[in-house]
Amino acid sequence: MTPPDDPNRVLIFDTTLRDGEQSPGISLNTQEKLEIAQQLGRLGVDVIEAGFPITSPGDFEAVQAIARTVQGPIIAGLARTHVGDIDAAYNAVKDAERPRIHTFISTSDIHIKYQLQSTREDVKGQARAAVAHAKQYLDDVEFSPMDATRADLEYTAEVCQIAIDEGATTINIPDTVGYTMPHEYTEFLTRLYAAVPDLRDIVLSVHCHDDLGLAVANSFAGLQAGARQVECAVNGIGERAGNASLEEIIMLLHTRQADVGLFTGANTREIARTSRMVSRLTGYVVQPNKAIVGRNAFAHESGIHQDGVLKERTTYEIMDATTVGLDANSIVLGKHSGRHALAQALAELGFELQGQALNTAFKRFKEIADKKKQVTALDLEALVTDELRQEIAGYTLEWFDVEASTRRPPHATVGVRGPDGEELVGSFTGDGPVDAIFHAINAATKVDARLREFRVDAVTGGQDALGETSVVLEFGGVTGAGQGVSTDILEAGARAYVRALSNAVRRHGLLAEQEAAAGADVPEVVRTP
Amino acid sequence: MTPPDDPNRVLIFDTTLRDGEQSPGISLNTQEKLEIAQQLGRLGVDVIEAGFPITSPGDFEAVQAIARTVQGPIIAGLARTHVGDIDAAYNAVKDAERPRIHTFISTSDIHIKYQLQSTREDVKGQARAAVAHAKQYLDDVEFSPMDATRADLEYTAEVCQIAIDEGATTINIPDTVGYTMPHEYTEFLTRLYAAVPDLRDIVLSVHCHDDLGLAVANSFAGLQAGARQVECAVNGIGERAGNASLEEIIMLLHTRQADVGLFTGANTREIARTSRMVSRLTGYVVQPNKAIVGRNAFAHESGIHQDGVLKERTTYEIMDATTVGLDANSIVLGKHSGRHALAQALAELGFELQGQALNTAFKRFKEIADKKKQVTALDLEALVTDELRQEIAGYTLEWFDVEASTRRPPHATVGVRGPDGEELVGSFTGDGPVDAIFHAINAATKVDARLREFRVDAVTGGQDALGETSVVLEFGGVTGAGQGVSTDILEAGARAYVRALSNAVRRHGLLAEQEAAAGADVPEVVRTP
Repeated sequence: MTPPDDPNRVLIFDTTLRDGEQSPGISLNTQEKLEIAQQLGRLGVDVIEAGFPITSPGDFEAVQAIARTVQGPIIAGLARTHVGDIDAAYNAVKDAERPRIHTFISTSDIHIKYQLQSTREDVKGQARAAVAHAKQYLDDVEFSPMDATRADLEYTAEVCQIAIDEGATTINIPDTVGYTMPHEYTEFLTRLYAAVPDLRDIVLSVHCHDDLGLAVANSFAGLQAGARQVECAVNGIGERAGNASLEEIIMLLHTRQADVGLFTGANTREIARTSRMVSRLTGYVVQPNKAIVGRNAFAHESGIHQDGVLKERTTYEIMDATTVGLDANSIVLGKHSGRHALAQALAELGFELQGQALNTAFKRFKEIADKKKQVTALDLEALVTDELRQEIAGYTLEWFDVEASTRRPPHATVGVRGPDGEELVGSFTGDGPVDAIFHAINAATKVDARLREFRVDAVTGGQDALGETSVVLEFGGVTGAGQGVSTDILEAGARAYVRALSNAVRRHGLLAEQEAAAGADVPEVVRTP
Repeated sequence: MTPPDDPNRVLIFDTTLRDGEQSPGISLNTQEKLEIAQQLGRLGVDVIEAGFPITSPGDFEAVQAIARTVQGPIIAGLARTHVGDIDAAYNAVKDAERPRIHTFISTSDIHIKYQLQSTREDVKGQARAAVAHAKQYLDDVEFSPMDATRADLEYTAEVCQIAIDEGATTINIPDTVGYTMPHEYTEFLTRLYAAVPDLRDIVLSVHCHDDLGLAVANSFAGLQAGARQVECAVNGIGERAGNASLEEIIMLLHTRQADVGLFTGANTREIARTSRMVSRLTGYVVQPNKAIVGRNAFAHESGIHQDGVLKERTTYEIMDATTVGLDANSIVLGKHSGRHALAQALAELGFELQGQALNTAFKRFKEIADKKKQVTALDLEALVTDELRQEIAGYTLEWFDVEASTRRPPHATVGVRGPDGEELVGSFTGDGPVDAIFHAINAATKVDARLREFRVDAVTGGQDALGETSVVLEFGGVTGAGQGVSTDILEAGARAYVRALSNAVRRHGLLAEQEAAAGADVPEVVRTP
């Protein structure tokens, strides 16, 4: 794309659904990716990198669904320099209002030699051909020299010049392994600008990983050197230690705008909700001391600090919690609240439910309201997200009974509805009640899944808090993740397990199909940069 | 202290037990603080800020115990500029091999006006008197002008000069509210050096908060400007978004030493274990994408990355997982392992257990080994940490029975051993099995505690993973935290709840005592910087 009219406007390029989604244990289905993309639209990001379409039919389908549905942001698809990658990326994003193809190849000698087993000359040729091919389809083409910060600068400059000559409208300089330091990155980009004067006419982008805890600082150093696009992810998820945190970048520029002069188009009040949604759907917990979106980011514990804030807020607060949307917990419903009040509360939260979906949500709300005195906005968000999760070709938990005691082994019996509507029943005596339920589900479904991760969080405080459970399991070489919400931790666990099992079984089936469809240029599940 | 002989040696000042421990919901008892301090000794930090002795008898006791026990690092106690604070800090640390008093007062006008309700002149006088008073006791005195980065530089320089004139051997410049940016901090410190040439003869220290995600980058900028002490905390815990992460600072300097030239005295191989211990004892989870110590910090998910690492490790790895101690999971015991094998495995993990403690650990190990095929080093660590938790004047879980079902409300009965050895029994029918157990414990103990947080994590992977449960509850205006480990999630939860309840009841009693002891200069629970 051409640079924005205002030279101080910074573009937020969100890669939660691409680099973020390739974190271990995360496996979002199309419906979940769509939900996140729509929320990113509400947050006002400029670009959504929706996936890497060549890697699997599921990835292609999700990118296409986002391109066809989400209004506002540019929708980008990632592609290696291969023709097949670029064709797949184009086909996935072409129906977007504003589609983008993002193509990449490494310019560091270590990657060229060991990973690509190629030569510098060949990489130049691939970069040239890829950008040219993408430009045949559309105008908005981004090019990344992968591992640039460990590459020879002059050579990287040559490759960038080639990409620009072929029509690339954004050049992104990834710190792929999270190795660089702010002053080094500044120097690299400054020298790159000097070597490639044409960079001034397009958008320079930064993409930093957090292996040494410097992703945000490096991205900021990049902006100070002239970059105007930041690639980042919600909650800082991504490969290894993840990407620069979207929320930290946005709030850094927002809080220090008077001194730095740069700004984004983000609606900061959507930050907290976006963070919660991504954490919930990926099963990736946000640590309490995480900047901006951690539970304690705005909490003051010490007497001195509390005393100071009471006397004058700015003594210890540089940001107002309401700016990031942390005051949204004001909606409170109870057991006497009606369907209309629920619909209104949900609309305030950005969920427009009607007809059958509203009926289902209302039924679930009533069940919870019977057990919990107050149902807050956070509870509603968790419940509705839970309900919106599509059960695709999967199993559904019907009921269970458990007896647990410190004095004898726990025993569980479960009833599960199968894909064809049949009721399946299984029993197991395990080491703990959760173990017994999970094994009983295996027995009922005759799927020999193995638990890899299990986590429980409380959605809101209090003795009657909703429990939110996250399960990752493995079956036949694929992993599946699932979440469940309930005031009963065992029920939440059982729901999460059944969903994770459904996801794993579905992915296992897709994989088998994919392997059966021989001959296509479908690579060894590839991702990056 | 005097600057180290090598001008490139960076001192690691750990404030996990002071700034870290003042995070909401964390309440470590003396035994737990001692364990962490001993592990910090093994990690090789230079200074342990062990607490803020004036704030409570519990804090005083813990600092004193650490000063008397932990060999190696300097042991520091925090103090406002008040005489009573400094006396308490001195009395708490005086038995250490190398004791330090760390005193602070704000130099920003916003703090002076609103928080201290004082004047610039008065603050100068307080700083002078405090350092002079501390110097009467010992040589190693650190002074911090709190909120320095938002303060007038010339005035802050004057106050620092006063502190140096009175004998301060370390001057620490806190970015108390996490507001500064690397280039600003560099400039501030460079100008401070120019204004206070005497700074060159002592140690300049940095203390950065992570509100905008820049704590590590700002600390690093400080080192580049000449500072040689970094105040940081394990897992980056601390007020609000926390302090600079100790592990990120250490590994940044370690990984980039060839280019930066600075080094620390840390034994990096102790990093992973230190992180796990602090997370376990504080109940503060480390997010999977946390740099250095997150579960995925060294994981490669995408096909391209995995492929690259297999071809040549350095294509995508800038650090080796073994460098931070992530290979320690090689110890595996089973149900046939004997007492000697256990003792040896524990010794490798740094736990020297003998006599009754070893017997208890062995009994617990056998119970677990009966249920789990393999008991790994991580399991052992969790179990032993669990056993080492002192039950102080508290309750102990004896047994429970629970019936849970989706078809009727869950019912729990529990037996708890009271402080005087009596068995207390209680029952409850709740909204979920955990809710029922927790209420039944309330009924048995007749303590009306309210749950504030509840979390469950798996210690290691697999269907038979140990569950680690964390509870924070509130009783009579104080919070108590507790953890529990078991293969049975309900048992782990019940253990954690009973411990949290014991802690809350104990703190409630201490608070009542403290309020009764009128007249002393015991402030409104104060903390900081």
